Amino acid sequence: MKKAASAAKPAGKPAALEETSSSERKHEAIVEAAKDLFLRGGYLGTNMDEIAALSGVSKQTVYKHFASKEALFIEIVNSMTNTAGDTVHNQIPELEEGGDVASYLVDYATRQLTVVLTPPIMQLRRLVIGEVGRFSELGKVLYERGPERAINMLAALFERLAERGVLATHDANVAASHFNWLVMSEPLNRIMLLGDEAIPKAAELRRHAKEAVRVFLAAYGQKPVRRRPR
Amino acid sequence: MKKAASAAKPAGKPAALEETSSSERKHEAIVEAAKDLFLRGGYLGTNMDEIAALSGVSKQTVYKHFASKEALFIEIVNSMTNTAGDTVHNQIPELEEGGDVASYLVDYATRQLTVVLTPPIMQLRRLVIGEVGRFSELGKVLYERGPERAINMLAALFERLAERGVLATHDANVAASHFNWLVMSEPLNRIMLLGDEAIPKAAELRRHAKEAVRVFLAAYGQKPVRRRPR
Repeated sequence: MKKAASAAKPAGKPAALEETSSSERKHEAIVEAAKDLFLRGGYLGTNMDEIAALSGVSKQTVYKHFASKEALFIEIVNSMTNTAGDTVHNQIPELEEGGDVASYLVDYATRQLTVVLTPPIMQLRRLVIGEVGRFSELGKVLYERGPERAINMLAALFERLAERGVLATHDANVAASHFNWLVMSEPLNRIMLLGDEAIPKAAELRRHAKEAVRVFLAAYGQKPVRRRPR
Repeated sequence: MKKAASAAKPAGKPAALEETSSSERKHEAIVEAAKDLFLRGGYLGTNMDEIAALSGVSKQTVYKHFASKEALFIEIVNSMTNTAGDTVHNQIPELEEGGDVASYLVDYATRQLTVVLTPPIMQLRRLVIGEVGRFSELGKVLYERGPERAINMLAALFERLAERGVLATHDANVAASHFNWLVMSEPLNRIMLLGDEAIPKAAELRRHAKEAVRVFLAAYGQKPVRRRPR
């Protein structure tokens, strides 16, 4: 998307902007090449020469953009995880007044499953987990930008829903963690161990999301006596 | 344990048995050395020469016991996962008549967490996940002997408890998967990404187990109307 945007710059741009744009294009090309190579060859199995060759820039240019292979891989973990998280959590409409909380949460869960359980993100996650012993910063970035962010966003949502009397949570963070892992972990852990062929089809994901939401609402659904607003 | 047993063989054993015993000792020594080296150096970072050296046998002897490095690593994944699973699931007393199902399940969950969330098993799991792309048999063995076995054992337990009217499950396998992942996944996924320092202390594991069982029983606890025995 960014590539297309920078390629479509208007003619007659001032030289300074042209330079920025060329630098951005190179940055993007390096990140895309590195993503491909890391996901295929692993962290140790990939070197900066290959990344320079595939992105069509010199090795010096790669190092001008990224101080080290470590820094480049952290950037990739960060950007892939952030992009997925943005799609799951950002600009999501609130539950309408009188809307069905079960359907709303099934949609939320299905979106989470669909966006996260893709071959590139699953390969990235395996790669990062495999490197945790040697290169712990990677796991930290994936954890913070992945599950921790998801749980924080869900906790904020559940607090708003509890204030409206739709959910009954004594601790929104615990409820968010239960929701997140009821939804994600069965397929996630299966795919981690059995490979990308274990990624469920869309209908199966939705069925799984419904079962997870059913259990979640049994524990956190609105109780007959409505809680006083805080 | 096996080492001690074979070392304590009675004097005056026939020669054939002595040979078996020596062979068993070597087998154990190879497995122990390989476990140490694989967990420290990774699969690719370990070779059969080092394994032979650390176990004090010749490389030919290593190959007499294990046809390949692959076969040896599969044996390690299999035996470590099986041993943990045996401790969690085997010879566990049934819930007593009139016993408290919540306490019983909290004990079950706490045992599961305590046995599985140890540095060697977490390192093994990271290593196996990191190798899934290259060496898929490993992940399959860990999946089958780990979560799949746990879920099968839990499903059988939940069927027995449903027949006694203690639980209300419409599908014991789905209930077992919910229980397993409510219990395991928050700490497991945190440890996968943040390293072994993220292994929770005993009190924290029990608190986590209690919250998981509370949610599980909200969905699957005994309903006011007792189901007819099947």
